[in-house]
Amino acid sequence: MTVAVQQLKKVSGKNIVTPKGYKAVGIHCGLKHKKYDLAVLISEVPASVAGVFTTNAIQAAPLLVTKEVVKENGKMQAVIINSGNANACTGAQGMADALLMQQKTAEKFSISQNLVGVASTGVIGEKLNMKPVLSGIEKLNPMDSLEGSIQFSQAILTTDTVTKNTAYKTEVDGKEVIIAGTAKGSGMIEPNMATMLGFITTDANIESVQLQQALKEVTDVTFNSITVDGDTSTNDMVLVLANGLAGNQSLNPSHPDWENFVHALHTVAQDLAKMIAKDGEGATKLIEVEVHGALSDCEARKIAKSVVGSPLVKTAVFGCDANWGRVIAAVGYSGASIDPNGIIIAIGETVVVTNGEPAHFSEGLLTQYLKQPEVKIQVHLNKGTGKGLAWGCDLTYDYVQINASYRS
Amino acid sequence: MTVAVQQLKKVSGKNIVTPKGYKAVGIHCGLKHKKYDLAVLISEVPASVAGVFTTNAIQAAPLLVTKEVVKENGKMQAVIINSGNANACTGAQGMADALLMQQKTAEKFSISQNLVGVASTGVIGEKLNMKPVLSGIEKLNPMDSLEGSIQFSQAILTTDTVTKNTAYKTEVDGKEVIIAGTAKGSGMIEPNMATMLGFITTDANIESVQLQQALKEVTDVTFNSITVDGDTSTNDMVLVLANGLAGNQSLNPSHPDWENFVHALHTVAQDLAKMIAKDGEGATKLIEVEVHGALSDCEARKIAKSVVGSPLVKTAVFGCDANWGRVIAAVGYSGASIDPNGIIIAIGETVVVTNGEPAHFSEGLLTQYLKQPEVKIQVHLNKGTGKGLAWGCDLTYDYVQINASYRS
Repeated sequence: MTVAVQQLKKVSGKNIVTPKGYKAVGIHCGLKHKKYDLAVLISEVPASVAGVFTTNAIQAAPLLVTKEVVKENGKMQAVIINSGNANACTGAQGMADALLMQQKTAEKFSISQNLVGVASTGVIGEKLNMKPVLSGIEKLNPMDSLEGSIQFSQAILTTDTVTKNTAYKTEVDGKEVIIAGTAKGSGMIEPNMATMLGFITTDANIESVQLQQALKEVTDVTFNSITVDGDTSTNDMVLVLANGLAGNQSLNPSHPDWENFVHALHTVAQDLAKMIAKDGEGATKLIEVEVHGALSDCEARKIAKSVVGSPLVKTAVFGCDANWGRVIAAVGYSGASIDPNGIIIAIGETVVVTNGEPAHFSEGLLTQYLKQPEVKIQVHLNKGTGKGLAWGCDLTYDYVQINASYRS
Repeated sequence: MTVAVQQLKKVSGKNIVTPKGYKAVGIHCGLKHKKYDLAVLISEVPASVAGVFTTNAIQAAPLLVTKEVVKENGKMQAVIINSGNANACTGAQGMADALLMQQKTAEKFSISQNLVGVASTGVIGEKLNMKPVLSGIEKLNPMDSLEGSIQFSQAILTTDTVTKNTAYKTEVDGKEVIIAGTAKGSGMIEPNMATMLGFITTDANIESVQLQQALKEVTDVTFNSITVDGDTSTNDMVLVLANGLAGNQSLNPSHPDWENFVHALHTVAQDLAKMIAKDGEGATKLIEVEVHGALSDCEARKIAKSVVGSPLVKTAVFGCDANWGRVIAAVGYSGASIDPNGIIIAIGETVVVTNGEPAHFSEGLLTQYLKQPEVKIQVHLNKGTGKGLAWGCDLTYDYVQINASYRS
């Protein structure tokens, strides 16, 4: 991976329309009071597509429509997204509405209907108001500019407080390949699925089967390693579009630059995942938990997620309280194999537990550290070589406030 | 069970010392600033004992000591409990301290050390201050009066706002048998173990093997069916002492009054479980979720626990928001087998979802209903005959406040 890291460069500028051949836009159509609520992403040519979708047994209509496109075609040219209403638990009407969004988007941009993905996010269980959506689709005018990508990233938000964009360039066959992404959180965020909306674009040339493989590889260690509140949404998905306009030889695991590409995709996904965790509902801090010495990477991630998802850890971090007892308790109930007497825990650079027992440390310095906007907790298990990361956020009054009055 | 229900009567008065031959007391020894923090429960004669213990891989020293008593002897005559410090993650010193509490209690009451259980609850990872504990043990003067049981139930509390006591009488062999219980919550409460401290006394005559069987039978549907915050403690246990002074024939599953006894134990355990849920940290409301029509009782409980544990459901209930989309989402991610189109959901008496789609209902009336101190959510799955209950509480600003500053 060392080579890959060297070749990877962050690029700023046009976000998800930075890769060749993409346009995007976001507008206010009227589902929300004032904010942008309708967006489209479009590729100049049909792109290979890969997707990961919610594992919730209740799946929203637009998600089912998009899954079908990914599964049946392996190609996608446009994605239409609305916020403000999830079009979930809306029965036959909801499915008809999602299909109509797909159809009208296809007609508007003169592309085949089965090349259009649909995503919705917002309140569950309310029928979608199709009038503003349909007139909105007519007004969409995607651009390959910063303005277009910013509007797009705004229009997919729900309770998020900031837009989430990232872009990197790498090289494949000596040609510049860009991978860029945008995403929204920020409640109902829990691993074991793509737990948000994420859209990643690239101009790399890659077939959908290989793209799916690469996405699957990075999803577990990025999007599936964040948690805000343990709730698993009915709507969430990550889509990657790869339109091939970079002109490289088609990527596959035996291609010499495969690792470069996967590393770039991983970096984009990890950036977005961390941005989602940091912007968790009501959050004031990003919490990163790093676990070493587990029996396997999978066990390490399980422990990391257990710690970062603990409401008691989250409230302690909010209160700048170095209450590591809650950390070790969450390690204990993670279900992973541990030796209580072998555990070392550090908060920031400060070791608070050695061999399962309290270490001597300065509470005052640790309280200062916990006031930072990013808090790191490390757990060393001394059981094996497995390591893993997870990200989350603190639990605050604002989380309660936001969710006690979400529909009001 | 109909016969059992008829024979069961709630009794008020002396709480856990209502059954013959028990005494209890609670005092302030000095672990906490002012509140009671040391308690003892003692039986006139060695009692059969059964226990369920935390499933957390990190287990506190007193819990290990008590497990040993239950496992090795099947008999217990006294339990010594401190609050204010969990004596967890305290290494060899912690184990020595727990054993010393056991020894000094045995000496004080002239009973065998291996008949003494030890329990601690409070902050994890701080060494127990043994000086006040040891001088406190010397001062303990248990009583078979209401005063003694009230002090006991006060001394085991941590962030609880109320004491939790219940007692019932039933008949076995025509003889009156009393079962009584006391418990503490109220954070780090999550099913799949005895997730709190609970002490149940009875004068029934029953061997420890049968008592363990009865306890196991009721634990899954009572203590293991509550959740406050999903955190699983290192210390928690439920102990049942049965001293045989009621004089009935020894109870076993083929005894004609076995069901009476189990039903009484179930009722005591369910009362305590609901009290713990209702007094969850920061809670303003008890939430009861009842699931019908699942593939099995186990699946029904899984769904009920998923709904009652959802932070989004909990905040919506706090905010009196009939946001059933969050309920159906939690049903969906429970992991149980469901048919999205067959689901019916009712909040109180109001059906909000039929066959997976929104029903027509008055938001205003439902908002009024959600202002009650006890909120019931029913889920009908139309998949099978499994049914189950779970209890929890709303998630409030006070939960955050309590846990952001627990050690301050």
